[in-house]
Amino acid sequence: MYIYGHKNPDTDAIVSAVVASRLYKALGYECQALRLGELNKETQFVQEYFGFAIPELKEALPDGSQVVLVDHNEISQSLDNLNELEIFAIIDHHKFNLKTSSPLNIRAEIIGSTASILYKMFVENSIEIDKQTAGMLIAAIISDTLYFRSPTSTEQDREIVEKLNKIAGIADLETFSLQMFDAKSDLSEFTPEQIITMDYKPFDFNGKKFCIGVMETTSPDFALNMQQQLIEAQVKIKSENNLDGLLFFVVDILHEQSTAITCSEFETQTVLEAFEASQVSEQILNVGSIVSRKKQIVPILEAYFS
Amino acid sequence: MYIYGHKNPDTDAIVSAVVASRLYKALGYECQALRLGELNKETQFVQEYFGFAIPELKEALPDGSQVVLVDHNEISQSLDNLNELEIFAIIDHHKFNLKTSSPLNIRAEIIGSTASILYKMFVENSIEIDKQTAGMLIAAIISDTLYFRSPTSTEQDREIVEKLNKIAGIADLETFSLQMFDAKSDLSEFTPEQIITMDYKPFDFNGKKFCIGVMETTSPDFALNMQQQLIEAQVKIKSENNLDGLLFFVVDILHEQSTAITCSEFETQTVLEAFEASQVSEQILNVGSIVSRKKQIVPILEAYFS
Repeated sequence: MYIYGHKNPDTDAIVSAVVASRLYKALGYECQALRLGELNKETQFVQEYFGFAIPELKEALPDGSQVVLVDHNEISQSLDNLNELEIFAIIDHHKFNLKTSSPLNIRAEIIGSTASILYKMFVENSIEIDKQTAGMLIAAIISDTLYFRSPTSTEQDREIVEKLNKIAGIADLETFSLQMFDAKSDLSEFTPEQIITMDYKPFDFNGKKFCIGVMETTSPDFALNMQQQLIEAQVKIKSENNLDGLLFFVVDILHEQSTAITCSEFETQTVLEAFEASQVSEQILNVGSIVSRKKQIVPILEAYFS
Repeated sequence: MYIYGHKNPDTDAIVSAVVASRLYKALGYECQALRLGELNKETQFVQEYFGFAIPELKEALPDGSQVVLVDHNEISQSLDNLNELEIFAIIDHHKFNLKTSSPLNIRAEIIGSTASILYKMFVENSIEIDKQTAGMLIAAIISDTLYFRSPTSTEQDREIVEKLNKIAGIADLETFSLQMFDAKSDLSEFTPEQIITMDYKPFDFNGKKFCIGVMETTSPDFALNMQQQLIEAQVKIKSENNLDGLLFFVVDILHEQSTAITCSEFETQTVLEAFEASQVSEQILNVGSIVSRKKQIVPILEAYFS
């Protein structure tokens, strides 16, 4: 069976696919971790730091193939023919939008990262966690919780990182997290279109087709200095994909503050009203201490459009 | 928070709600088991045998209430305003059709009963299972797996019953299972409409609105002797609910054989073609060794109508 994280994979999606494949192999299953997109800079840093093999890119599978989905459950974030595949298991920490024709295994929790759930599954099944796996899981938890700054972070995520670091032995987790976030913030070699769609997910708000890109960064000025290009890229992507709305948020990880760069009057009004944002300039809006797409941005927009 | 099994509750739905409330209370949550319908005769037998308190009937909750769903996940089998409730957790072993606006806890497995999953959750959380709870879980597993006869039954369900009976101490499980099935088979005080809808679930087959009733019994002759009334009851229910199709299967538990009693030419043709059934008389069709709605009847009809 094939184990996949979501499209536009982040560190949790890649690490969880690799670690889930180790878990299922230990449980006697034949399986392979795959991916649905390129590694971002943070994940590249984590991959080089721990030296694990990068999952192969494989964006299509024949109908009937058996898959495990980690860190996602919605078809819009998965393989296009998901409804024709056999989902053996899902391990996830997002909201659900799932329709299957057979029973399946699901492990979902209200917790900061899929990696935290995988840690529990190793413990419950009495499978030893090796040093590399422990480090990888720590990196995924740090990434998804913004080193415990995100409102999605729970006390359990902290405790799990503490336990895992007894195995991983990372000397200074704070410094390690800054290295990860700085790697993620280095976007110098990307086009504006790539920056918008790097961490980018589709949503349906009461029939309106939206996409929301998020740039978590320690250097928000990088984005603000190229605001005109980022606006033009959004206009292009929105039009090419026939979206009703496209939103892009620059999340200042260290100061836990976000800025929306809006691409048209509709998005500007939406952000001003839904988030009670303050206007810095015509298309630059300060949305305050919003840092989580999942726990803050999406629920606010769902309530606004409902 | 409120813990619910599905509409038209069976033994697994009632027992799992009660036992899940015990689990969550032991984990420190305030919660109450409730139900969405009357106990069937088998569940009444089990309730009297072990003497647990029957969950209160409460078919509506105010918007925003927090719920746990056991043994189901689809809104059609749950509270009508499920989309307005906050689902804290789902424990289930069925196919999924679920859309939430927030992350939630889900524990789903490909296993014979929800009760089997609850057993694992007690063990994982190191919570002691008392004698009554052990007996109740055994009854729910026996009910849902037809004492390991159903194709949904797994080796795990057998092992769990064996472990639980070290606590419950039921002297002869075979005899106990026959008492349960005989209790379920005593339908003398029910109207034909009640018999059709006693174990009855809605399905959507490629846009066609179906309901499927199942009568698991040790006395199939009881149904066959009242076939005309059961046909008339189906015609009435189908028309009143604007269904495209209504199917009713009499499952002979002990001989693992089923008979469909069909209410119109459309259902007769469907059963003949989809199940390669043999016609006993015009509206009585032998469908062979089909005993599971979940694993056999529904997938066969999904394939037939797709």
